[in-house]
Amino acid sequence: MAKAPVLTPQADDFPRWYQDLINKAELADNGPVRGTMVIRPYGYGLWERMQQEMDARIKDAGAQNAYFPLFIPQSYLTKEAEHVEGFAPELAVVTHAGGKDLEEPVVVRPTSETIINEYFSKWVQSYRDLPLLVNQWANVVRWEMRPRVFLRTTEFLWQEGHTAHASYEDARDYAARIHREVYGDFMTNVLAIDVVLGRKTAKERFAGAINTLTLEAMMGDGKALQMGTSHELGQNFARAFETQYLSKDGRQELVWQTSWGVSTRMVGGLIMSHGDDNGLRVPPRLAPIQAVVLAIKGDDAVIAKVREIGDQLKAAGVRVQVDDRTDTPFGRRAVDWELKGVPVRIEVGPRDLENGTAMLARRIPGGKEPVALDGLAAVLPKVLEEDQALLLRQSRERREARTTDVATIDEAAEAAQTGWARIPWAKLGPEGEARLAEQSVTVRCLVSEDGSVPQADDAPGTVALVSRAY
Amino acid sequence: MAKAPVLTPQADDFPRWYQDLINKAELADNGPVRGTMVIRPYGYGLWERMQQEMDARIKDAGAQNAYFPLFIPQSYLTKEAEHVEGFAPELAVVTHAGGKDLEEPVVVRPTSETIINEYFSKWVQSYRDLPLLVNQWANVVRWEMRPRVFLRTTEFLWQEGHTAHASYEDARDYAARIHREVYGDFMTNVLAIDVVLGRKTAKERFAGAINTLTLEAMMGDGKALQMGTSHELGQNFARAFETQYLSKDGRQELVWQTSWGVSTRMVGGLIMSHGDDNGLRVPPRLAPIQAVVLAIKGDDAVIAKVREIGDQLKAAGVRVQVDDRTDTPFGRRAVDWELKGVPVRIEVGPRDLENGTAMLARRIPGGKEPVALDGLAAVLPKVLEEDQALLLRQSRERREARTTDVATIDEAAEAAQTGWARIPWAKLGPEGEARLAEQSVTVRCLVSEDGSVPQADDAPGTVALVSRAY
Repeated sequence: MAKAPVLTPQADDFPRWYQDLINKAELADNGPVRGTMVIRPYGYGLWERMQQEMDARIKDAGAQNAYFPLFIPQSYLTKEAEHVEGFAPELAVVTHAGGKDLEEPVVVRPTSETIINEYFSKWVQSYRDLPLLVNQWANVVRWEMRPRVFLRTTEFLWQEGHTAHASYEDARDYAARIHREVYGDFMTNVLAIDVVLGRKTAKERFAGAINTLTLEAMMGDGKALQMGTSHELGQNFARAFETQYLSKDGRQELVWQTSWGVSTRMVGGLIMSHGDDNGLRVPPRLAPIQAVVLAIKGDDAVIAKVREIGDQLKAAGVRVQVDDRTDTPFGRRAVDWELKGVPVRIEVGPRDLENGTAMLARRIPGGKEPVALDGLAAVLPKVLEEDQALLLRQSRERREARTTDVATIDEAAEAAQTGWARIPWAKLGPEGEARLAEQSVTVRCLVSEDGSVPQADDAPGTVALVSRAY
Repeated sequence: MAKAPVLTPQADDFPRWYQDLINKAELADNGPVRGTMVIRPYGYGLWERMQQEMDARIKDAGAQNAYFPLFIPQSYLTKEAEHVEGFAPELAVVTHAGGKDLEEPVVVRPTSETIINEYFSKWVQSYRDLPLLVNQWANVVRWEMRPRVFLRTTEFLWQEGHTAHASYEDARDYAARIHREVYGDFMTNVLAIDVVLGRKTAKERFAGAINTLTLEAMMGDGKALQMGTSHELGQNFARAFETQYLSKDGRQELVWQTSWGVSTRMVGGLIMSHGDDNGLRVPPRLAPIQAVVLAIKGDDAVIAKVREIGDQLKAAGVRVQVDDRTDTPFGRRAVDWELKGVPVRIEVGPRDLENGTAMLARRIPGGKEPVALDGLAAVLPKVLEEDQALLLRQSRERREARTTDVATIDEAAEAAQTGWARIPWAKLGPEGEARLAEQSVTVRCLVSEDGSVPQADDAPGTVALVSRAY
C-alpha cells in the first residue's frame, strides 16, 4: 500500500495544496473574524526575515521609519476623489468607543496616503525639507469578500513608503529606484523569485496614482501574483492636502509624491513559487532556519554531537537549529522539517558517529548523501548558495516555459488558462483589456521588448503580459 | 538681554516642558483622532532601537514572535470576568465594515490574552507542546479620556508576551525571568534608568492576573512612571478558554500562564528621566545616532573632512551621522542636535583643520573641549560608555535623594508631593492604600527590605513605595 501523501498533491487541487501546506507547516491559521489570520511563529519568522532584508534596503535608499495612526477621520478619505472611490467598499469603521457613540466615525486605515499627507503638509515648508522619505511598518485593514490566507486577508501586515519631492523627475526616479533596487533586488536575490518588473495599465493603477510600477511573479499553477507596487502619485494628494514648499526662487509649489508597499502577501507568493508536494522550500538567504541538525536517537553521544555541530555551524554564520526532541519519532520530525522547507537537514545517528559522518538532506534539489563532519562548516555555506541559485533558476525556467507569445486576444485568453501570454499592447489596448477581463484574465503589466519598464502605456514596442491572477 | 529659552524650563512647568521637547525635538505630533499620535522619524528611531534591544533579549529568553489579529469578537472579551470589567470602558468597536453593518461587532484589541488563548487551546495538546512562549509586536487601542503623547495614547505600540506552562512554578519563574532579565536588564543597562523591580498590590493588578510584577521609574519631577509589567495569570484564562494539555501521566490539566508587555510609553519615560532644559539626553547604548559630525561652514575641505570622520567612526562601530547641511546656520543645527539629545557632537571648522583637532561637545555631562582628530575613533567609544554610566548614576541619585522613609500615612501623602515615600506595608495595608488614593497617591509597588521582590503582599519585611504617578 502506498503511503498517503502528507499534502493534497498540487496537480490534484492547487488551492487545497496551498491551504494544506499552510496548516501542516504551521504557518498560519484563520482568525475568528472573517478574513483575518493568525501568523504562527514559523510563518512569522519568514515575515521577520523579509522585514529585515527589506528594511535594510529601504534605509539604504534613504527613507526613515515613522508611525502614523491606525484611525483616520472619515473626512480625510474623501479629499482625493479617486482614492475614496477605490477604497470605500473595503473600509472598516469604528462608530463606538470609550463607552459611547463617536461624533465623527473613524476608519481603520486601508492605506495611509491621506493621513500622511495631512502631516507632510505641516512638516514640509521649504525646499530644504525635500525630499522627505518616510516608511512605515504597519497593519492595514481592507474588508475582504473572498479571503485567502496571506493572499487576501482583511487585515494584513505591510510596509508603506511615502515620499515628497521637489520635482516630477525626482519623484519618478525615486519610485523607479524603489521598484528596482529595493523590491526587485530583494525578490530576485533573496526570495529567489524571478519577478517581472513592469508598469500597470491605466485600468489597474492604484486609486489616486498617475503611474503604478509592479512586480509580477508566476506561481506554481501558472497564475500571476502581484508581489509589490511602487506608485507615482503626481500632485494629486498634494493638491488635496495643500502639501506645498517654498522653492529656491521663492515660489510656493506643490510637492510631487510616491508611495510603495509590499505585504505579508509575499509569504503566499513564496509558498506558491517554491512549494512542492512535500511542502515548502525556503530560499537559504531568506530562511530563518537554514539548517537543522537532528538527533536520530536519544543517545547521549548523539545528543552531544548534534549540539556541537549546532555550535560549529552557528559560529560559521549559519542560521541553525538543533532538534534533539528524541521523545518524538525521528521520521515525524524529518517530515515536519521537510514540510517547513528548511533548506538543509543534518541527520546524526549512532552509526554516523563511528564513521565521523552525517546524512545531509537537501530540501531544494532533494536527495540525501553522507557528508564528513569535519568539513561541514566549510561545505554548508556553498551548498546553501547553490540551492539559492537553483530555486531562482527553477522560477525563471517555469516562467519562460509557461509564457506564450500570441498575436490575438483569443489566443491570449487561451494561453492564460495555463500560464502567461505576451501580446503587443498595440494589438490589445484598453478595449482588448476589457474583453479579457470578462474571462477573468488581466493585464498584469506592460514591459518593453528589451525587458525594461516602458515610460508610457503607448511607448513603441510595449508588450502586455496577461494571465489569470491571485 | 538674555536669550529666550528654547523650551519652557522644567522648574516652571514640567508638563509643558515635556510637550515642548516632543514638538521641538520632532519626536511626535498629536494625531487627528483624539488621543492618537504620529511618531516622527527621530522619535520612531528611539522606539526602533528599543525594539531591537528588547527583541534580542526576548528571543534569548526562548520566546518566538507571532502575530494575532487586530479584531477580536466581542464575545471573547466577556469570557474572563475580571478582564472584561477592566477593559470594557476603553474599547473601540467596529460596527460597520465592507459597506454594511456587522452581525457581531468586533473590538479593536486592547490587549490579546483572549484571542491568544483561543489559539493556545488549539495548539497545546500535550506536555510536549509546553512551555509555549510567544511574543507579538503590535498596536493596541484603549480609548483615553486624558491623553498625553507617549504616556497615555488611544493607540500605542508595544510588545506583548504570552506563555503557557505545565506548572505554577514554571509560569511564576518565567514571569520573574522576563521581569528581571529582559525588562530590568534593558531598562537599567540600555535606557540607563534606575528602575525599581517590585510587585503590584491586589488593587493595582492587571485585570485577570493573580500577580503583577512591575518596573517603576522616578521621573524628573519626582513622580513615578510604570515602565513595564509581567503578569502571572494563573489558570484564569486557561479555565475560560479550556487551554489544557495531556500530562506525562495521562491526565488533562489546565495550563499556567503569563503575559508581559512594554510600550511606546517607555519613550515618554526616557524623556522625563533624562531630559533637561536644553532638550533630550539619549543614553549612548540606545541612541540611534550616537555621534553627529558637523561641518561648521560649507568649505570644501571641511565637508571632505566631516565625511572622512564619519566613515572612520562608522568603521569603529559608532552609530554616526554627518551633518553637512551648511545652507542652514551652524548655531541652529547645533541647538537642534542638542534638543534631540545626540550624546556627542564633533564640530569641525576651517581653523580646526589646520590644528588637526575638532571640538567635542558632550551632551550628557555638558561642555565642549578640543580633541585630536587622530585619536577620535579610539576615544569615542570610551566617552560614550562613560556618559552611559553617568546617566544611570544621575537617575539613581535622584531616586535616592527624593525617596523619604516614613512611618505614617499622612507622612507618606506629604512626601509624595515631591517624590516617593517608603512605608512598611504592615503600616499601610489595603485601607491605607485606599486613603492615599483619595489624594491621587498610589502604591507603585511592594519591595522587600533587601530590595528583592516579595513573594506575597504580606511577606514579612515588605515595604510599599508610594507616590503620584503618570
